[in-house]
Amino acid sequence: MRPNRIRELFAAKTCATMGWIALNSTYSAELMGHAGFDTVVVDLQHGPLYLDAAVPLLQALSSTPAMPMARCSDNNFFEINKLLDAGAYGIICPLIDTPEDAARFVSACRYPPQGTRSFGPTRGILYGGADYAEHANDTILALGMIETAQGMANLKAICETPGLDGVFIGPADLSFALGVKPPPRWTESPLTEALDRIRDAAHAAGKMAGIFCGSTQMAIDMKKRGFDIVMNGMDALMLRATAEQNVKAVRTA
Amino acid sequence: MRPNRIRELFAAKTCATMGWIALNSTYSAELMGHAGFDTVVVDLQHGPLYLDAAVPLLQALSSTPAMPMARCSDNNFFEINKLLDAGAYGIICPLIDTPEDAARFVSACRYPPQGTRSFGPTRGILYGGADYAEHANDTILALGMIETAQGMANLKAICETPGLDGVFIGPADLSFALGVKPPPRWTESPLTEALDRIRDAAHAAGKMAGIFCGSTQMAIDMKKRGFDIVMNGMDALMLRATAEQNVKAVRTA
Amino acid sequence: MRPNRIRELFAAKTCATMGWIALNSTYSAELMGHAGFDTVVVDLQHGPLYLDAAVPLLQALSSTPAMPMARCSDNNFFEINKLLDAGAYGIICPLIDTPEDAARFVSACRYPPQGTRSFGPTRGILYGGADYAEHANDTILALGMIETAQGMANLKAICETPGLDGVFIGPADLSFALGVKPPPRWTESPLTEALDRIRDAAHAAGKMAGIFCGSTQMAIDMKKRGFDIVMNGMDALMLRATAEQNVKAVRTA
Amino acid sequence: MRPNRIRELFAAKTCATMGWIALNSTYSAELMGHAGFDTVVVDLQHGPLYLDAAVPLLQALSSTPAMPMARCSDNNFFEINKLLDAGAYGIICPLIDTPEDAARFVSACRYPPQGTRSFGPTRGILYGGADYAEHANDTILALGMIETAQGMANLKAICETPGLDGVFIGPADLSFALGVKPPPRWTESPLTEALDRIRDAAHAAGKMAGIFCGSTQMAIDMKKRGFDIVMNGMDALMLRATAEQNVKAVRTA
Amino acid sequence: MRPNRIRELFAAKTCATMGWIALNSTYSAELMGHAGFDTVVVDLQHGPLYLDAAVPLLQALSSTPAMPMARCSDNNFFEINKLLDAGAYGIICPLIDTPEDAARFVSACRYPPQGTRSFGPTRGILYGGADYAEHANDTILALGMIETAQGMANLKAICETPGLDGVFIGPADLSFALGVKPPPRWTESPLTEALDRIRDAAHAAGKMAGIFCGSTQMAIDMKKRGFDIVMNGMDALMLRATAEQNVKAVRTA
Amino acid sequence: MRPNRIRELFAAKTCATMGWIALNSTYSAELMGHAGFDTVVVDLQHGPLYLDAAVPLLQALSSTPAMPMARCSDNNFFEINKLLDAGAYGIICPLIDTPEDAARFVSACRYPPQGTRSFGPTRGILYGGADYAEHANDTILALGMIETAQGMANLKAICETPGLDGVFIGPADLSFALGVKPPPRWTESPLTEALDRIRDAAHAAGKMAGIFCGSTQMAIDMKKRGFDIVMNGMDALMLRATAEQNVKAVRTA
Repeated sequence: MRPNRIRELFAAKTCATMGWIALNSTYSAELMGHAGFDTVVVDLQHGPLYLDAAVPLLQALSSTPAMPMARCSDNNFFEINKLLDAGAYGIICPLIDTPEDAARFVSACRYPPQGTRSFGPTRGILYGGADYAEHANDTILALGMIETAQGMANLKAICETPGLDGVFIGPADLSFALGVKPPPRWTESPLTEALDRIRDAAHAAGKMAGIFCGSTQMAIDMKKRGFDIVMNGMDALMLRATAEQNVKAVRTA
Repeated sequence: MRPNRIRELFAAKTCATMGWIALNSTYSAELMGHAGFDTVVVDLQHGPLYLDAAVPLLQALSSTPAMPMARCSDNNFFEINKLLDAGAYGIICPLIDTPEDAARFVSACRYPPQGTRSFGPTRGILYGGADYAEHANDTILALGMIETAQGMANLKAICETPGLDGVFIGPADLSFALGVKPPPRWTESPLTEALDRIRDAAHAAGKMAGIFCGSTQMAIDMKKRGFDIVMNGMDALMLRATAEQNVKAVRTA
Repeated sequence: MRPNRIRELFAAKTCATMGWIALNSTYSAELMGHAGFDTVVVDLQHGPLYLDAAVPLLQALSSTPAMPMARCSDNNFFEINKLLDAGAYGIICPLIDTPEDAARFVSACRYPPQGTRSFGPTRGILYGGADYAEHANDTILALGMIETAQGMANLKAICETPGLDGVFIGPADLSFALGVKPPPRWTESPLTEALDRIRDAAHAAGKMAGIFCGSTQMAIDMKKRGFDIVMNGMDALMLRATAEQNVKAVRTA
Repeated sequence: MRPNRIRELFAAKTCATMGWIALNSTYSAELMGHAGFDTVVVDLQHGPLYLDAAVPLLQALSSTPAMPMARCSDNNFFEINKLLDAGAYGIICPLIDTPEDAARFVSACRYPPQGTRSFGPTRGILYGGADYAEHANDTILALGMIETAQGMANLKAICETPGLDGVFIGPADLSFALGVKPPPRWTESPLTEALDRIRDAAHAAGKMAGIFCGSTQMAIDMKKRGFDIVMNGMDALMLRATAEQNVKAVRTA
Repeated sequence: MRPNRIRELFAAKTCATMGWIALNSTYSAELMGHAGFDTVVVDLQHGPLYLDAAVPLLQALSSTPAMPMARCSDNNFFEINKLLDAGAYGIICPLIDTPEDAARFVSACRYPPQGTRSFGPTRGILYGGADYAEHANDTILALGMIETAQGMANLKAICETPGLDGVFIGPADLSFALGVKPPPRWTESPLTEALDRIRDAAHAAGKMAGIFCGSTQMAIDMKKRGFDIVMNGMDALMLRATAEQNVKAVRTA
Repeated sequence: MRPNRIRELFAAKTCATMGWIALNSTYSAELMGHAGFDTVVVDLQHGPLYLDAAVPLLQALSSTPAMPMARCSDNNFFEINKLLDAGAYGIICPLIDTPEDAARFVSACRYPPQGTRSFGPTRGILYGGADYAEHANDTILALGMIETAQGMANLKAICETPGLDGVFIGPADLSFALGVKPPPRWTESPLTEALDRIRDAAHAAGKMAGIFCGSTQMAIDMKKRGFDIVMNGMDALMLRATAEQNVKAVRTA
């Protein structure tokens, strides 16, 4: 089975770069996959796209060097199963607030006896290889999102959940949970302490810590602060920001 | 009928900014339409999309401040008719090499008696307004591309074609026509002289001169050199370039 | 943030007209949006379309005077979040049977601290404006459907749920709940009394009462009976009925 | 091979009713196919849809009693071939101005030796039956549009073209050709005489005469004037008109 | 209302053949529907397709002799409702582990008073006929999947659930449940005994027993062993296997 | 630039196997690409799909070992340009009847100065590599179809057209041209002699000879007769044939 790039980088203690897809365009997905990211995530939670759109996006990523991942919209057994069958090599799951949430999420990602994933890896086999069924449980990545007060309170137990590969931070929702409005101010209290706590809890359990960054500067800071995965390129944000800069540059010239 | 923004800017001797769509994503099209461009062009020639994809992209642009345009793939009567019916407020047509090409292109853009456009403005009426049929001939923009040696030889006659609103330059194909390979070097001979000649010929005939720019620097230069329309934001190029920069910034940090 | 047209009409004590989309066609959606309705609802419950189809339909509505809304298929946190992120300016939610159902629905529609909506308003910002995050909680409309015996029993408590903007009636399912088969006979007992009770309960709580009408006559009656929102144009029903009339008229001529 | 309903009706001297599809919705196409029309036409010329959209629309019509037809966008060999392969049981071709145009159109509709249609009837066989190849030349309907001054001048020769099954009138473009602007006034000179001339020329050659009608009243009139096929139900027009009436009825109640 | 072919065959004690769709292609769906199967199932659980893709597939099947069915991804009220509204004439539901699961599944398939299905049979009426609402409860097929240890333990009670029409076996997940890895060895213990037990329990309750077969040989065996429905043609598996054979045959020639 | 597999096999005097796509399904395209074919062709001529469908199919093939090709629907400059820009590594063009047809086809496939292809290789660069523009003229395959009497008469001159890489036979249309009806009988006169003549003419000019085979037996025969490329797997035909066999096997068991 094709190895999981993010596992390899974590084993090598190297920070992984992650791209993020909200645009429902297979050509755009290919461009993202060829841009150099170690992995690219198809976002079913906030991206204006769902399962029928996700399949061709995962296919488009499959022809690029970037490992295809998905963020599911919900800790939902059937949706996670479908994304894995469709060839996602890892799942980021929102709203992991308790160790029970984490265990349920992990179970959906693993075949019996480790979990309850149903058998039918249609595209998984195409991307992963003929021995997919044998190695999927050890290869597929499962990252749970810490983004509520409850999740913060259960941080240690969540990180220690067997089979969970790590945690991932959505700083906007985490800010809400900390009582401050987005956009997230990662260099100020209370967000900065929360990020440290989550990273430390993950590392204490031998797990990965990843984070969604709204800017390159934030991504660089997070890399330096020891995060294992930094999301530093969401397609829609990059496109709009660059387009606005270009217009302004010409207008004011 | 809703006025044509590019005509207004040309009348006001103000350089228009133009965006360019190669990504088949309606969300991406909206982002482009909200980025500040005066007009955004759906590219059917080199964009990996065709007529069935173009309709929702033109619809997406219709909810934004940017005027929707299209580049047809060919000087083809039916395709130009379909794009206008679908609500394009202007057409850029490739390979206008002779005044006959220009006249044929113009004819497809105008209802009788000025032209031969067939009647059935399905979305045109939705975007333009109930009096679309009455004013379309004076509103819709028709820009012909000068991109071959033959087009250069016929420059004056093309520009003087009645009903043609202006010319548009594709610097890569024009470079081929001048015997030099792309990418286009707009500051060097022979391209720089060709750009000047086309601009001057358009202006001498009272027509617009527009140009596709591969970089913001080129767009600023072209604005300063008197071009009336500068394309300074192709979605696919902006996305890939920005994504590559972001990855590199984090990798090397 | 762009104001919510239905809130404005309710404040002005003016009955709002509502269109309904079951056809998965962006062109059809535009036609509906331009037909004069105050709002048009994309129906994910009974329309043969789901989340991937809903996004371009909401985009198509965004270029028209009609305010885009959606009926979710279920009182499901993730689906409601996705529809709001995709630019729906209001949600109609089926099967609000208890005040707990209502509270859960409202929570999905509001950002913290009023609710638990997750942050990522991709298209919401494009339609609503740059200050979307600040005003969304006060702008987005949340209407719950009363359509079961349990819902009737809990009517008062449902209407008094903080944050719920009103109730909406699906007369076919409500008929089932009252022990009579569809099609709904709104002028006869027991349906007519039920409609009055729901309207009164909503108004007593200062909330809106809306209703799905299968005919223009019913819509006119409901307006006269004091309903604040009347759905009087479902695309599929209008198309089929008009087509059948046209055929018959010619056949029998 | 499944018989061609329009041929049967013509043989029985019975006026055929025709529906018209501009909406790219397979559900809408089914509704049209079940509404009672003898045939329903997918419009590739002015409908905001093209070949990739046409296939599922033809499939949707295949489950209904209405015979699937298409209007091509152009007298183009490849496009006509594709529509027939996709299961269209008849083609309406725009801009038949000369007998040469007619012959070229007919040739694209017939296998050798009668014509030059290329072999590969993918969906044709599914809709028509296993003996499609044997009977297609005698079954498929070919209707040419008379809509220019040149077409009027060549009327007799066009109608006499071997293999052409009839002519079809687009009154809006024909009005332009007669020097009057749309909308077409079918009860006034010069349009009314032109319609009579075309009908008579068709009948003199033993061919069908069909016409696109913008209203039921016009359709009834045309039936009475002896036309063999009347188009009396375009989806987009019916939907918008009915929706506007419904809104107005409630607003003014 | 159009009768349910599988019910008719079961009444006639004739084994029904079933095809299976994982390919998101309406043309492919038509080919499957014309291949001779008594019914063809659109698979939303493991097929790389979801609700927006399922609608046109069900439409494509509607023009063929095969009865359209669907496997839902989950025992989810809204999803089952949507599939039935979209014209599925039967549902196969995964993970029926308890009689409560079975009752919940049945309830979603039946209108009140037998169940809680919401009213709005958009495409159901087109496929089933105008009297759909009256007969749907007696016509639509509800098959529950037995695929876990818990399901095996509750076998009798599940089979006796009122309104459940039968059980269906996914041998791969059942193998996991029995502690053996897929691919399923149906001729060996413990799978062979489990299949017998399930079939006998279904028959004892007067219900159907169906099974997914990975090969024609298995399908023939299952027919001989008394199963009422055998799935013996999944599109993706058939296509890949045949393509590989063809390549190999030419390579080695 | 990624090498062209078919050129390599031809240089090594090894017969290439070719698959054929008529199904508009990206998952099916991937299955075809993984089945072992040296190349897989997306068929725009007779497949029920066109340019908007072809792009994701070419993307899907890009993740597999099979080289993506396309058959255009017509010897049309813009369509061929679009398919090459979309990443097709070779084009099969119908109806090459004269050396002028062949030259025009070749010109559309080559950048200046060898041809007139317009510059804008959007996906070509993603599949081929960053040096695509430099090597495309020597890498992209151009195969012309011999399928008419005129084509047979001009065989030698067509084969000698500079830049044409070979010829390809569609036996059904060629049969028509020889005065015999399809299905093609390749072992009988006059088809068998025609196949020999075409192969010999191609080889005499140092060019490839390829052929579409309706069965594996024909493909094996053609390989043995010295053809360089044999198409021995069209998805729609394989699927339907296998499905029918499976049904029959179970029915008759």
